[in-house]
Amino acid sequence: MMKTAALPWRVVLVRPRNPLNIGAAARAMANFGFRDLVVVAPYGPTWQETRSAVGAEDVVQSARAVDGLLDAIGDASTVIGTTSGARRTLDREPIDLQDLPAWLQQHASPRGRAALLFGSEKTGLANEDLSHCHAVVRIPTSPETPSMNLGQAVAVCCYELARARAVAARPPASRVFFSDPANLHSLEHVFDRAVRVLDETGYLQPKSRAATLVKLRRLLLDLRFSNSDVRILGGVLAQIEWKFRTMKDER
Amino acid sequence: MMKTAALPWRVVLVRPRNPLNIGAAARAMANFGFRDLVVVAPYGPTWQETRSAVGAEDVVQSARAVDGLLDAIGDASTVIGTTSGARRTLDREPIDLQDLPAWLQQHASPRGRAALLFGSEKTGLANEDLSHCHAVVRIPTSPETPSMNLGQAVAVCCYELARARAVAARPPASRVFFSDPANLHSLEHVFDRAVRVLDETGYLQPKSRAATLVKLRRLLLDLRFSNSDVRILGGVLAQIEWKFRTMKDER
Repeated sequence: MMKTAALPWRVVLVRPRNPLNIGAAARAMANFGFRDLVVVAPYGPTWQETRSAVGAEDVVQSARAVDGLLDAIGDASTVIGTTSGARRTLDREPIDLQDLPAWLQQHASPRGRAALLFGSEKTGLANEDLSHCHAVVRIPTSPETPSMNLGQAVAVCCYELARARAVAARPPASRVFFSDPANLHSLEHVFDRAVRVLDETGYLQPKSRAATLVKLRRLLLDLRFSNSDVRILGGVLAQIEWKFRTMKDER
Repeated sequence: MMKTAALPWRVVLVRPRNPLNIGAAARAMANFGFRDLVVVAPYGPTWQETRSAVGAEDVVQSARAVDGLLDAIGDASTVIGTTSGARRTLDREPIDLQDLPAWLQQHASPRGRAALLFGSEKTGLANEDLSHCHAVVRIPTSPETPSMNLGQAVAVCCYELARARAVAARPPASRVFFSDPANLHSLEHVFDRAVRVLDETGYLQPKSRAATLVKLRRLLLDLRFSNSDVRILGGVLAQIEWKFRTMKDER
């Protein structure tokens, strides 16, 4: 567990509205030794206010604001979404937060960067955001009051990651980690190619296209490709595309 | 661990100043299923403001304000103080929060009430307060930014208590993350289909065919497909085969 526990985590706040929450998230990150904060599409005035707040954390001062989620996670090889409460997230069973360290142990490479995503205060992460996640973590809140304050949710998650790191300082684990994990950029590249092939074959029906793509992207993420796997799959897809083109030309 | 994990916890805020923090503490308690909040010597106007806040939690509505610490903990048989950071607390070595469940297991009676004390935002718990505690818990914050926001500290502690409870309630067997794994038959079936597609595209070179197929089968196994994954991949491949056939017929 040592290795995944020490992953370089990035916290990504997707479309946060309340500047107090951005500040609180940064404070909690600093408390537990995390420094890499990226905010996706913050509401403009909110972001200005947060950055200029008196006593703003270093974490906030060095945070980046980006336009789209992929700008925030493109270089990550493990992406974890968060949800609190009972909300169904696609057809995926969320992992309870306390099981995240064990999940990382089994599924995440200790080499790449890891990103932890938090949705907006009101709506949480959208299905489109979740389709980029390797796993969704559920903070195990009570069914009567499932929804957490954003700053507190970040605090609890950062604590759990720091806790796992501390606990990991005990026994050495004996798992062979797969090396050279594919990052999101190369996965997106191969995914785009796959979509072109699927469009060519008529696999994607207009009505269900978006939902099917979300499902397929999830499948692609779940398979935890290495860079070498991605090269192979990319090669296969390129060959199929080439064949389609050739056959068309022959008509 | 079962028994102490289910202790009826009371959260005690000692001389809090900021009404937002009292509200945030109550919210976090409700999130993790704790309902018993006692506030010691709140600053008068603060307490009025907190109680009358729009949308105040049930936990706040049913909270008690008392004059002295003993009024809050007199009926408790286990009292735990909290501190964040490196502050020396009397001559006692603080327990790291993640070790609290194990400590309770060894030292606390599963019968009595347990109280978790949080000091004021500025000064934390006074030595006089700490002298009533059976143990002091340290939230393992980073030395550079040791001091936590009160609401976030309560959230993290409530999460840890709920986590220990959940872990204790779980059957000893470790969780299985892979459900419904594909069996070898269905993998071979989808593999055969993939080989037909690859042959059709010319991806497989006569000379390296056997070696490439071994590599691809290995890849397929390593990816740990579920039955649902196999159905999706089989469907995609069937569609590609169909398209090839259609295009040939059109020639």
